[in-house]
Amino acid sequence: MVKKYIMTPGPTPISEDVLVEHGRPLMHHRSPEFSKIFSETTDKLKKLLKTENDVFILTSSGTGAMETAITNSFSIGDKVLVVNIGNFGERFKKISSIFGLEVISLDYEWGEAADPEDIRKILDEEKAVKGVMAQFSETSTGALNDVMAMGKIVKDYPAIFIVDAISGLAASDFDTDGWNIDIVIGGSQKGLSAPTGLAFVSISGKAWKAIEISDISKFYFDLKAAKASLQKNQTPWTPGISIIVAMNRALDLLFEEGLEDVFKRHRVLAMATREAAGALGLELFVADPGQRGFSVTAIKVPEGIDGKELTRIMRVKYGVTIAGGQGKITGKIIRIGHLGYVGMFDVITAISALEMTLADLDYKFETGAGITAAQKVFSENNYLDQ
Amino acid sequence: MVKKYIMTPGPTPISEDVLVEHGRPLMHHRSPEFSKIFSETTDKLKKLLKTENDVFILTSSGTGAMETAITNSFSIGDKVLVVNIGNFGERFKKISSIFGLEVISLDYEWGEAADPEDIRKILDEEKAVKGVMAQFSETSTGALNDVMAMGKIVKDYPAIFIVDAISGLAASDFDTDGWNIDIVIGGSQKGLSAPTGLAFVSISGKAWKAIEISDISKFYFDLKAAKASLQKNQTPWTPGISIIVAMNRALDLLFEEGLEDVFKRHRVLAMATREAAGALGLELFVADPGQRGFSVTAIKVPEGIDGKELTRIMRVKYGVTIAGGQGKITGKIIRIGHLGYVGMFDVITAISALEMTLADLDYKFETGAGITAAQKVFSENNYLDQ
Repeated sequence: MVKKYIMTPGPTPISEDVLVEHGRPLMHHRSPEFSKIFSETTDKLKKLLKTENDVFILTSSGTGAMETAITNSFSIGDKVLVVNIGNFGERFKKISSIFGLEVISLDYEWGEAADPEDIRKILDEEKAVKGVMAQFSETSTGALNDVMAMGKIVKDYPAIFIVDAISGLAASDFDTDGWNIDIVIGGSQKGLSAPTGLAFVSISGKAWKAIEISDISKFYFDLKAAKASLQKNQTPWTPGISIIVAMNRALDLLFEEGLEDVFKRHRVLAMATREAAGALGLELFVADPGQRGFSVTAIKVPEGIDGKELTRIMRVKYGVTIAGGQGKITGKIIRIGHLGYVGMFDVITAISALEMTLADLDYKFETGAGITAAQKVFSENNYLDQ
Repeated sequence: MVKKYIMTPGPTPISEDVLVEHGRPLMHHRSPEFSKIFSETTDKLKKLLKTENDVFILTSSGTGAMETAITNSFSIGDKVLVVNIGNFGERFKKISSIFGLEVISLDYEWGEAADPEDIRKILDEEKAVKGVMAQFSETSTGALNDVMAMGKIVKDYPAIFIVDAISGLAASDFDTDGWNIDIVIGGSQKGLSAPTGLAFVSISGKAWKAIEISDISKFYFDLKAAKASLQKNQTPWTPGISIIVAMNRALDLLFEEGLEDVFKRHRVLAMATREAAGALGLELFVADPGQRGFSVTAIKVPEGIDGKELTRIMRVKYGVTIAGGQGKITGKIIRIGHLGYVGMFDVITAISALEMTLADLDYKFETGAGITAAQKVFSENNYLDQ
C-alpha cells in the first residue's frame, strides 16, 4: 500500500468531519432546511472575508467566479487594468479580452509581487479605467500582492477593485472592508478545505453601481438573479448542495480554531517548508521573502533534474501529490501546498518524500537536512502553543 | 422523529452506495487517478445517451449547460426556434434573448406536448433558423415531447437540434444518435441520482460546425477549451471532483440494473402514481396519457385546497418533500417525482402521505384508495420480475 497525501495548493486535504457532512443525503434546494444552511454559510463567508457586503455562492470553479466578476461589473469596450504577476493574472486578461474589454496590462516577472504605486501611476494617466484586477495570492508562483496598499490607492478613483483571493483566503488575514476591496473572489477547495465545485464573490456598494449599468450578456452567472434569490436564502439555479453543506462545516472548523491561530499555523507551515528547502540547497521561486504568500511554496527545480519526473516520483512512488509549474514555467518549479487542513506532520511528510525523491534523482544534499530544518522551525515558533 | 423522504423531480434520492463514493477523500483533478475516473464517467454517459458524439461534463447546474449549448452554437442575431411547453421552454427563450438571438417561439399550453409537425411548418417558412430547442421531459409539467419525431424532421434542415433531457434521461429510452439529436443536455441530480452540481452536454459533428463559427463571448463554458482538455481526460477548470466520482458510481448502478429494466421500473412507478391519483379523485395536469413522461407526475390541486399548504404539510408533518408548481402555475399543481433511485415503496410512501395530508385538509376521498390502486399496478405489472 502506498498511502496517499495531497499537498497541492488546491484541492487541499479535507478533514474527516467535513467529508462526513459532505456524504450526507441531500435536502432539496428549495426547502427551509437548505435555506437555513445556505444562510449560515453565507454569513460565515462574510465573517471570513470581514465584510458587510453581499456574498454570493456560485456552483462553478474559481474561474467561473472570475468570469462572474468581469461580466457583471463592466460594459463592452470598458478599459480595465489587470495587475499580472502570473498564470491567474493572465487569466484575468484573457477573460476580460474575450468579453470585449480593453485591457491595460501591468506585467511583472513571474515570482514577483506588484508595486502598488505602479497602479496609482496608471490610474492617474488613464482616467477612463473602470476596474483594477489583481490576485491576492498568485497560485502559480506563490507570490502575495499587497492588496491592502492597492485598495488604499484604488478607492480614490472611480475604478472598482477586484481581487482574486482564491488561494490566499484563510492562509493569512484578509480584510475586505478594511482594505476597500469591491469584489473578492474565493473558492471552496483552497484554504477552506471543502470539496471542489463552489466559488463565491463579495460585492460592495460601489461594485453594485457598476453592475447596474453593465451591458455584457450573462445568465447563469447573473448577480442580479443571484441577489433576487438571496433574499429567499436560495440560489437562482440548482446549487452544489452537498458542497455547500460541507463548506458550512469547514467554515466552522476555521472559527473553532480561531482565525488568528489559523493564520499563525499557515505562517509557520510556510516558514518550515521554506527553511527545509533552503537546507536542501534548493532555491525559492519568489526571491523576495516579503513577497511570499503563506498558501504555497514554489521551489525552483535544480539544474539537471526533470521537474515532471520529480513530481511523478513523489506521487507514484511515495504517494505525495504536489503541483508542478503552470503556463510558461511548466517543469521549472514544483509547488508544495501547505494550505487548509494541513498540520506540521503533513509538511514533514512532504519534505521527507521530497528528500527521498531527490535522492532517487541523484541530487546531492545532506539526508535529513530538510526535515531537521522544518522541525526546528516548528519548535522555535511554538507551533503547538495555540 | 419525522423520517425524511425526497420525492421531487430533482434532486432525487441518492443511494447509500453513491453517497459513500461521494464522501471519499478527493484526488487532485490533474492526477492520473482522476483522469481515469473522468474518462470512465464520460464513456458511461455516452452509453446512457446512446451516442458516439463528444460528451462534456460541466461543473454547473443544468441551466449552465443550457447556456453552454446556446452560447457555443450560435452567433449574435441568429434566428432560433424554441419549442415551449413549460417553464424550461421559457428558460431557453430567456437565455437565447439575453445572448442576442432572435427567438421564434412555438408555444403550447402548459401540460401539453408539442406537435412535431409544427416544427416542420416553421422550418419550411423560416429558412434562416439556425437551431431548434426543445425539452424532452418538461420538468415543470411532466409532459414528454416526441423528440424522436422532431429529430427526424430537423435533420433535413440546416438547423441543429438541441434537447434538454435533464429530467427525462434514465426514466425512458433516449437515443441521441438514432434520433439525430445534435446537442443533449443532462444533469447529475435527476435520473442519475447523483448529487447536484454537475451537468453534461453531448455535441454532434453538425453542432461542432456551428460551434466553429459562433461569435458569442464565453469562457467558463467554452466547449473548445473543454475539447482541448478532454484529450488529456481533464477539464479546463477545477471540476466538482467528488460529484464526478459519485456520478461514476451512480452510472454503474444503472447499467448493473440494465437500462431496459430501469425504464420499465420508471414506467410502472409513473403508472402507479397516476392510478393512485385517479383513485383519489385527483386530476392529472397532462390530460393526454400519450404525452405523459415517466419522471414526474403533475397533479392538479383540487378546488378549495391551498397547494402550498398541501406541500408544506407533506414536508413538515409527514417528512415527504414533493414539488409544487413553477412559474405561472405556482400553487395550482403538485409534482411527485418518481425518478432515479426510487422503488415501489417510495411511491407507496408518497401516496400514503398524500392521502393523510388530503384528509388533514378535509378533502373527501376513500381512505386507502390511492395506496390500493398503486399496489394493484405494481402487482399487475410484475414490478419485481426484473
